[in-house]
Amino acid sequence: MDTRFPSMGRADVGLQCARSYKLLKEGQELTKEEIFLASALGWCIEWLQAYFLVLDDIMDNSHTRRDQPCWFRVPKVGLIAVNDGILLHNHIPRILKKHFRGKAYYVDLLDLFNEVEFQTASGQMIDLITTLEGEKDLSKYTLSLHRRIVQYKTAYYSFYLPVACALLMAGENLDNHIDVKNILVQMGIYFQVQDDYLDCFGDPKTIGKIGTDIEDFKCSWLVVKALEHCNEEQKKLLYEHYGKADPASVAKVKVLYNELNLQGIFLEYENESYEKLVTSIEAHPSKSVQAVLKAFLAKIYKRQK
Amino acid sequence: MDTRFPSMGRADVGLQCARSYKLLKEGQELTKEEIFLASALGWCIEWLQAYFLVLDDIMDNSHTRRDQPCWFRVPKVGLIAVNDGILLHNHIPRILKKHFRGKAYYVDLLDLFNEVEFQTASGQMIDLITTLEGEKDLSKYTLSLHRRIVQYKTAYYSFYLPVACALLMAGENLDNHIDVKNILVQMGIYFQVQDDYLDCFGDPKTIGKIGTDIEDFKCSWLVVKALEHCNEEQKKLLYEHYGKADPASVAKVKVLYNELNLQGIFLEYENESYEKLVTSIEAHPSKSVQAVLKAFLAKIYKRQK
Repeated sequence: MDTRFPSMGRADVGLQCARSYKLLKEGQELTKEEIFLASALGWCIEWLQAYFLVLDDIMDNSHTRRDQPCWFRVPKVGLIAVNDGILLHNHIPRILKKHFRGKAYYVDLLDLFNEVEFQTASGQMIDLITTLEGEKDLSKYTLSLHRRIVQYKTAYYSFYLPVACALLMAGENLDNHIDVKNILVQMGIYFQVQDDYLDCFGDPKTIGKIGTDIEDFKCSWLVVKALEHCNEEQKKLLYEHYGKADPASVAKVKVLYNELNLQGIFLEYENESYEKLVTSIEAHPSKSVQAVLKAFLAKIYKRQK
Repeated sequence: MDTRFPSMGRADVGLQCARSYKLLKEGQELTKEEIFLASALGWCIEWLQAYFLVLDDIMDNSHTRRDQPCWFRVPKVGLIAVNDGILLHNHIPRILKKHFRGKAYYVDLLDLFNEVEFQTASGQMIDLITTLEGEKDLSKYTLSLHRRIVQYKTAYYSFYLPVACALLMAGENLDNHIDVKNILVQMGIYFQVQDDYLDCFGDPKTIGKIGTDIEDFKCSWLVVKALEHCNEEQKKLLYEHYGKADPASVAKVKVLYNELNLQGIFLEYENESYEKLVTSIEAHPSKSVQAVLKAFLAKIYKRQK
């Protein structure tokens, strides 16, 4: 299956749980029950993501998701989609109760999902109040704000959560794996920087969508880096044209990104992040945990989509 | 405190937890910790309700809640209210983890809140798809549909949940209290029938709002009973005028309700429900559980608001 998904999108976040669990067990043949349970946890992660995406699309007033109309755009659905989102979320405790109630780690699973949900909603809150209509202000866009949004909104649920589920299934205590959490959060931030980069510089055919971060006044890693490297004149241009739907404004911002060599700056960031991540991973005492983290990293390094 | 709230609205659902716990302990002086914990659980119930109300108001396109603009109507909030709702909900597992993580009943509390949340969202779903714009059809409005909506949407969270929390705190196993659950669900249904009655026949000054169930095509107990008792001509009138905003239509429906003596039918229902509830309560083996249920019933019997 992996060969059909040479690079990972968040669309297959649920699969990471069983993959990680298998690596933790160092390639031992898994029992049918283990495969079932690891897949059930993967589905819980998928429902968590579905819940957030259905509701995010409403809040962002989006039009399409995965090449189809957003759920709330379907005529008979409308804002009932809010309650459908809640029902999607309710699947998580129901699946956990049905299949894990008797396990020693049941309560840890509940706590984990609750904590990650809170982190994700907190990230979404920071993102929403940052890009609030009528409060557009580029001076707020710093690397630390970008990092905070990305870390909370996506890194915990799409990087830490699947591995944490696998660790719990393998009988581990998550309190002993703070270093694993930190590495996965770093990896999630790196993944999102790639996302921001591809939104502007990726091939729309390959990434499957036309990026609109510039039009949408997003706190993208690119605009943060542009603000860091620009002179006064370029800064004026950014302030004037960033966040405007007008294609001429968008084009001006893209020309500026090229002038500032953001592609080169990104390549440097990518190599540096990769080196740091490899060093952190290799410092981990457990070879099987290393294998999990390296497999995850291999799936995202230098991805084109 | 009770004398200031001779009848109960859902506005004080959170208080029912500590009240019930005190009665379960048969009036013994509670320790400071017990009062604190029972109150913390009451707050969890309040956050659950707040979460549902913030989101329900969005889905129902409501204007005011408790005499103030709905949260999503506040200009800078808008649909960010969806995420605020999620954050309100996140308070529940956070409070439970902070104060109950070490208790033997911690996992039961988590399961209880998750189950009640699912029941409530399911009730909301039935309600939403029943009153869907463009699908208005009075022939669907039966007593069993009304009961199903009311039971799931409100009875579990506002009647069963506070008492179930108190039972868990008192060391009880909820599996042994199915009868208590059934009685509280019956009480919740009775409460909602009163609500439907007061929406039309209550004094707006006393109930604090002007009822609009007729205009909104609600599956109210009154319209269900009207459909049950009307002749063909009256039925035609209902089909024509129910669910119209026009005051003349609303007035016609109200005249019909009076012709059908719905006030008398309600009084009969009220007395019958009360008798049945008292009989069920007195059949319960535990005097302290009886006290909890009777106190709850006394707060809602013959309420005017």
